[in-house]
Amino acid sequence: MPEALYFNGLDDLIRNALAEDIGTGDITTLSCIPEDAVSTGVLLAKDEGVVCGLSVAARVFALLDPHVTLTPRVEDGAAVAKGDILADIQGPSRSVLTGERTALNLLQRLSGIATRTRLAVDSISGTKTKIVDTRKTTPGLRVLEKYAVRCGGGGNHRFNLSDGILIKDNHIVAAGGITEAVRRVRRLAPHTLKIEVETENLAQIDEALAAGADIIMLDNMSLEEMRKAVAHIAGRALTEASGNMGDKDLRQVAETGVDFISIGALTNAVRALDISLRFR
Amino acid sequence: MPEALYFNGLDDLIRNALAEDIGTGDITTLSCIPEDAVSTGVLLAKDEGVVCGLSVAARVFALLDPHVTLTPRVEDGAAVAKGDILADIQGPSRSVLTGERTALNLLQRLSGIATRTRLAVDSISGTKTKIVDTRKTTPGLRVLEKYAVRCGGGGNHRFNLSDGILIKDNHIVAAGGITEAVRRVRRLAPHTLKIEVETENLAQIDEALAAGADIIMLDNMSLEEMRKAVAHIAGRALTEASGNMGDKDLRQVAETGVDFISIGALTNAVRALDISLRFR
Amino acid sequence: MPEALYFNGLDDLIRNALAEDIGTGDITTLSCIPEDAVSTGVLLAKDEGVVCGLSVAARVFALLDPHVTLTPRVEDGAAVAKGDILADIQGPSRSVLTGERTALNLLQRLSGIATRTRLAVDSISGTKTKIVDTRKTTPGLRVLEKYAVRCGGGGNHRFNLSDGILIKDNHIVAAGGITEAVRRVRRLAPHTLKIEVETENLAQIDEALAAGADIIMLDNMSLEEMRKAVAHIAGRALTEASGNMGDKDLRQVAETGVDFISIGALTNAVRALDISLRFR
Amino acid sequence: MPEALYFNGLDDLIRNALAEDIGTGDITTLSCIPEDAVSTGVLLAKDEGVVCGLSVAARVFALLDPHVTLTPRVEDGAAVAKGDILADIQGPSRSVLTGERTALNLLQRLSGIATRTRLAVDSISGTKTKIVDTRKTTPGLRVLEKYAVRCGGGGNHRFNLSDGILIKDNHIVAAGGITEAVRRVRRLAPHTLKIEVETENLAQIDEALAAGADIIMLDNMSLEEMRKAVAHIAGRALTEASGNMGDKDLRQVAETGVDFISIGALTNAVRALDISLRFR
Amino acid sequence: MPEALYFNGLDDLIRNALAEDIGTGDITTLSCIPEDAVSTGVLLAKDEGVVCGLSVAARVFALLDPHVTLTPRVEDGAAVAKGDILADIQGPSRSVLTGERTALNLLQRLSGIATRTRLAVDSISGTKTKIVDTRKTTPGLRVLEKYAVRCGGGGNHRFNLSDGILIKDNHIVAAGGITEAVRRVRRLAPHTLKIEVETENLAQIDEALAAGADIIMLDNMSLEEMRKAVAHIAGRALTEASGNMGDKDLRQVAETGVDFISIGALTNAVRALDISLRFR
Amino acid sequence: MPEALYFNGLDDLIRNALAEDIGTGDITTLSCIPEDAVSTGVLLAKDEGVVCGLSVAARVFALLDPHVTLTPRVEDGAAVAKGDILADIQGPSRSVLTGERTALNLLQRLSGIATRTRLAVDSISGTKTKIVDTRKTTPGLRVLEKYAVRCGGGGNHRFNLSDGILIKDNHIVAAGGITEAVRRVRRLAPHTLKIEVETENLAQIDEALAAGADIIMLDNMSLEEMRKAVAHIAGRALTEASGNMGDKDLRQVAETGVDFISIGALTNAVRALDISLRFR
Repeated sequence: MPEALYFNGLDDLIRNALAEDIGTGDITTLSCIPEDAVSTGVLLAKDEGVVCGLSVAARVFALLDPHVTLTPRVEDGAAVAKGDILADIQGPSRSVLTGERTALNLLQRLSGIATRTRLAVDSISGTKTKIVDTRKTTPGLRVLEKYAVRCGGGGNHRFNLSDGILIKDNHIVAAGGITEAVRRVRRLAPHTLKIEVETENLAQIDEALAAGADIIMLDNMSLEEMRKAVAHIAGRALTEASGNMGDKDLRQVAETGVDFISIGALTNAVRALDISLRFR
Repeated sequence: MPEALYFNGLDDLIRNALAEDIGTGDITTLSCIPEDAVSTGVLLAKDEGVVCGLSVAARVFALLDPHVTLTPRVEDGAAVAKGDILADIQGPSRSVLTGERTALNLLQRLSGIATRTRLAVDSISGTKTKIVDTRKTTPGLRVLEKYAVRCGGGGNHRFNLSDGILIKDNHIVAAGGITEAVRRVRRLAPHTLKIEVETENLAQIDEALAAGADIIMLDNMSLEEMRKAVAHIAGRALTEASGNMGDKDLRQVAETGVDFISIGALTNAVRALDISLRFR
Repeated sequence: MPEALYFNGLDDLIRNALAEDIGTGDITTLSCIPEDAVSTGVLLAKDEGVVCGLSVAARVFALLDPHVTLTPRVEDGAAVAKGDILADIQGPSRSVLTGERTALNLLQRLSGIATRTRLAVDSISGTKTKIVDTRKTTPGLRVLEKYAVRCGGGGNHRFNLSDGILIKDNHIVAAGGITEAVRRVRRLAPHTLKIEVETENLAQIDEALAAGADIIMLDNMSLEEMRKAVAHIAGRALTEASGNMGDKDLRQVAETGVDFISIGALTNAVRALDISLRFR
Repeated sequence: MPEALYFNGLDDLIRNALAEDIGTGDITTLSCIPEDAVSTGVLLAKDEGVVCGLSVAARVFALLDPHVTLTPRVEDGAAVAKGDILADIQGPSRSVLTGERTALNLLQRLSGIATRTRLAVDSISGTKTKIVDTRKTTPGLRVLEKYAVRCGGGGNHRFNLSDGILIKDNHIVAAGGITEAVRRVRRLAPHTLKIEVETENLAQIDEALAAGADIIMLDNMSLEEMRKAVAHIAGRALTEASGNMGDKDLRQVAETGVDFISIGALTNAVRALDISLRFR
Repeated sequence: MPEALYFNGLDDLIRNALAEDIGTGDITTLSCIPEDAVSTGVLLAKDEGVVCGLSVAARVFALLDPHVTLTPRVEDGAAVAKGDILADIQGPSRSVLTGERTALNLLQRLSGIATRTRLAVDSISGTKTKIVDTRKTTPGLRVLEKYAVRCGGGGNHRFNLSDGILIKDNHIVAAGGITEAVRRVRRLAPHTLKIEVETENLAQIDEALAAGADIIMLDNMSLEEMRKAVAHIAGRALTEASGNMGDKDLRQVAETGVDFISIGALTNAVRALDISLRFR
Repeated sequence: MPEALYFNGLDDLIRNALAEDIGTGDITTLSCIPEDAVSTGVLLAKDEGVVCGLSVAARVFALLDPHVTLTPRVEDGAAVAKGDILADIQGPSRSVLTGERTALNLLQRLSGIATRTRLAVDSISGTKTKIVDTRKTTPGLRVLEKYAVRCGGGGNHRFNLSDGILIKDNHIVAAGGITEAVRRVRRLAPHTLKIEVETENLAQIDEALAAGADIIMLDNMSLEEMRKAVAHIAGRALTEASGNMGDKDLRQVAETGVDFISIGALTNAVRALDISLRFR
């Protein structure tokens, strides 16, 4: 069961999406459909996958017209088969037709992410490793896409540059080494944030550990290197495998013993799940 | 060479994306990088494809910090190979690092769309058919994604519900037939818009033609049905093939003689093109 | 009966108008009127004309205070006489008084446009010509003002620069002729838009027809020139008379056989219809 | 010489107007006009009147494209004749064409208001009476329209419900009389605001004077009644004539000796001044 | 009993404050508290003072979640003792916890202002002088803070630079004297605003009176100077004592006979009143 | 030397503050000051303290009028004495006068916070304890106020509910104990965030340590209890003293050995530092 979605910008996002899709008015619908016509329909999975975004789709219709009700039959995070009914919809025909595309664009995309995440998570089942996302999300949709990752069984890496510390190679070079970089961050950052350091070899790992890093990123390492790194760190810090993980054999990576595998492709190489709105 | 991009909401979109990614501040960078440090680097293709969004990426940095300059080496729409340098970047290190992810997220996504479109366009080269997009775009990014389709050599279908008329089955049913639906639309719509009607068989095509439809959509027809439809219409209206075209053999579809093939997958089943920012 | 109004920016427009009129508070009303006072009243026509904007006025009060109800007695587009009651209003006295001016400013202006349009439409009754508007509307109010034109019996020309193509003399000169201009537009524009070309003489008309123009604008032509142009075009394209039409004898223009007469004065030379809110 | 214009929402108003007019892009111009084409032109008066809004028009182009320069040849408030050149414009052809309509819509409307105001002001020249506006302005444009009134030689009444006190009949009835209404307002309102009371007869005038009203509105009075009222008040308060003043003989009203005549028609019954952009 | 609060930007202010405090989600609460948990609690005064902002706090919760109800037990402006219950709150536990800090931050601050104002007002009880605020308010909160001053028994000076005229020394110098400054203001300002002039000595007071100033500010005068100024003005204009009044013996100032004492410290040297949300 | 300020909403905050203060125009200044007048002046400390916000004040003027330049003579975080000049200002007189109040309101408030923080920091000098802020900030100004705390030598606690985990008593009760609460948080929260638990006694501390809490808040404990708690924890977690710390003897608290003391009063019981703009 996925965790709750909270996103204080959701209504603005949806209003913006509706404005983008409707322009100055849905002329075809306003012309053809009588104002008092009412429709009933369902949201139908046309492929198998993990559904995500039903409450978002419901909000699309609610903001367009409070008289439309979309009632989910499954929860976000549910695995669905082709032909499954995901939700019932009922309301003024005009509003259902006008809101359809915006609702589906969101629902299909989020479900695509949840589906892809579930595949990754399932591929490492039984290991102690957790699949997490990155900041490679669609501009404007990050909170929703990270929610979709959770619905697919993954975890979230930091949401933005202020709620997580990640010291990368450029930071290290500019600061004059890992030790100094960590020291500087500790002076400025809230004490409530962990410090993660990107490393490429054991020497860097040792320096990071000595500096008190909480999380060590193993960046673009081979399986063998990762295995050694994990053994060397030996629980003194959390470990995260990173670097084109979308194209790797995730089970092999997990079996190196890393705590986390972060995968950009969860959110930036996604096929929308095919879902359609079918009228009765 | 792609057509010009104009999008009056671009700055708002970028500011919103930067806010989403930066939160209350890029703590790592502010801590590690001195305020007066300056960096030079390049945008590098790490895979082959069609690039799109360089001016968008430049605008990301310009809005974050006018002292950063991103100078493209190629134009949007250019085919690039792995290892090609796409642009030079120069400016305050802090701003380059803080804006990097937002710029790449946009650039990679748009390049992914342009790349996918180019593949589709190339697959039907030599035919008179044009590949066009749909409204299955990412909420908030439609104008950019349709620009990416043009950069890939495709054309645009309507941008929203008010700048194009498309009479679908639900409209037809509600109006009581194609003839009445077209009549109603003609009364309300500006005379500057063409009228497109979705059809599934020859009877509907005949009714649409008689009603004066300008464009006839051939929805979910077999190759054989499309071929017959095109011959039957015989230039009396434009023709558009539609319905899961992302999974079809496009050359076969084009050879039916349709004027347009509209493909939702151009924008909703996209793998971001791998592009990275490399410091010197 | 007028067509439906849909305008996704209406609430923002109204909130902005209320903020403009209320400032930091309606001091007079807050001082004099008890919080629990309730009023009943009517909207009264103080002149004859065509009413437009009752649902807009209702929305003004609804956004200010959901406890105010404005119930129209007539529909938008109705012809009303001096003394006619247009709507009943009921609710907290403070809110009725505070919202009055904003509601009336919108209602009176839209009714003024509908009234002026009706006069133009009536003046050519019996002809096949349609009166349409232009982009000479009040900044911020275009969708509402074009709705008012429809309520007055007119039709709409394009809403903006992206949902209609109009190739004017400057475009023709820059492109190097009508033929090339049309060719360029066809390459960029969605295939769902018609192409209109502004012409001043028969030579241009011939070039436009040859290029495949869908609509030919007859700009600033004399009645005689228009008559000849219409005869020459002979149904191969739609025709639109344009150029200071607000000052012309419209029946004479219509009798040249043009399909459309576009009139900027419908929206930029308007006297607000006198409507007042009368308490009981 | 008109007073300075300051309006902190001007840029938002213009951006909104440009978005409304441009939609997703000026397809015709982007297609036909090369990106590097540059144009020179003038703003030309096609009718006589008082010009207002040149700096607003300049700002329209500046916000669309900083490379466009619009240089006024006359100041706002200048009387112009048919054929007068009002300003020179120079810049990228695309931007000039795309911004033209929005700039002219604002400029023509404001000039129409200034022109109408000047007529009213001139009609009472030699008297001590001042013409002022009302809150019957176009929603969203109030600050600009009140600036246009000043450019025409008129003065401004209050801008909104919080920067001026006007006790009307409904306030009087609800408060239980003028005396109590004034007392309540004085308790709540900042001491920096004058108090105006609407009156219909001498008894009300006496009560308002006794309550300490600073301004007395003479509402819908005959010329004879106004003359008596002014004599009776005898300078103990300012006087303002009100009530359909747009249809009255203003000189006769002014000769009653009132200090101010407020006229809603200055802003809600306006014909845009004909101004065009002519390319060289 | 305090006057009514009206503030058309309140919802935007609250949404902004909630967004600032919630970020991308209240992770702790979403993790620990079940979605269907419901809580009951009270707002409790932990110090004595004057409460202000209960309707604002209620609005915070209403905008976050309409299922939360906050029911005041006292009115804004009420004096409360340590331990007094100010309001009852009931609703979904998650929403109560997530909105708590934003609601309290507003409520405590406004109550702090009301409390400080009440002290000032009480200190001059029995005199005819009125305590008023200034523009030294927190950016973004002015309307609320001026409401808090009214709840504490004070009055409001002008809300902004357009709803009140205050000619200060720099204005006087630039205009070339008080007489000319007043003349210039009278030409531009709406006739509905009073004119206040800042003075430092009797000569300036005489010039201001002669120019027709409505209010005379006695700036940074000694008690003796103020006493003389008031006697000299003798009711020909309102008088206002100003200049570090937050540190003065207000009763002594009031006993000079001034009409108003304006105090910046009412809003810029404030200790939040200690109020907490206690669950049952 | 204080750390860098980055705040992506700063411009919006300032524009909003200017709009609030200017309303529809600074009538006094526009009337009295010629458009071409230029002024020179300084920002002057009228009391001793720590200055903060000079770049914010500079931005106020820059956004109002790019021709105004404010050049700091000291850096944010500098201790200043009464009479010290903080910055030079130069530019059009109108803009300097119109922006003065908004700039000072921000500068004075931030300097007040920095001053109060410095006092707290100095009072525990020589200890290893760090003073940090809370979320008891002014709605809308949090990022600025937390910057002011840093300028005063303090550190920042979490900025909002999503970039820090703080499990309070209500969370513990709802989850059924500290152990379960920590477990639930760990499942949902990004692994980049530390987990802080509020405790009131040693039993809770033990449970928190066992659950793996990173930070332990000692809430409302006596000095003796804190001392025992710190000794008991013995470095297994960070420790934070909390609970009305604004009224405590901070040195005594620091000497218990806690790592952090969080003080709400740093931001919600602040006296603006007296700073004025003096013209030359």
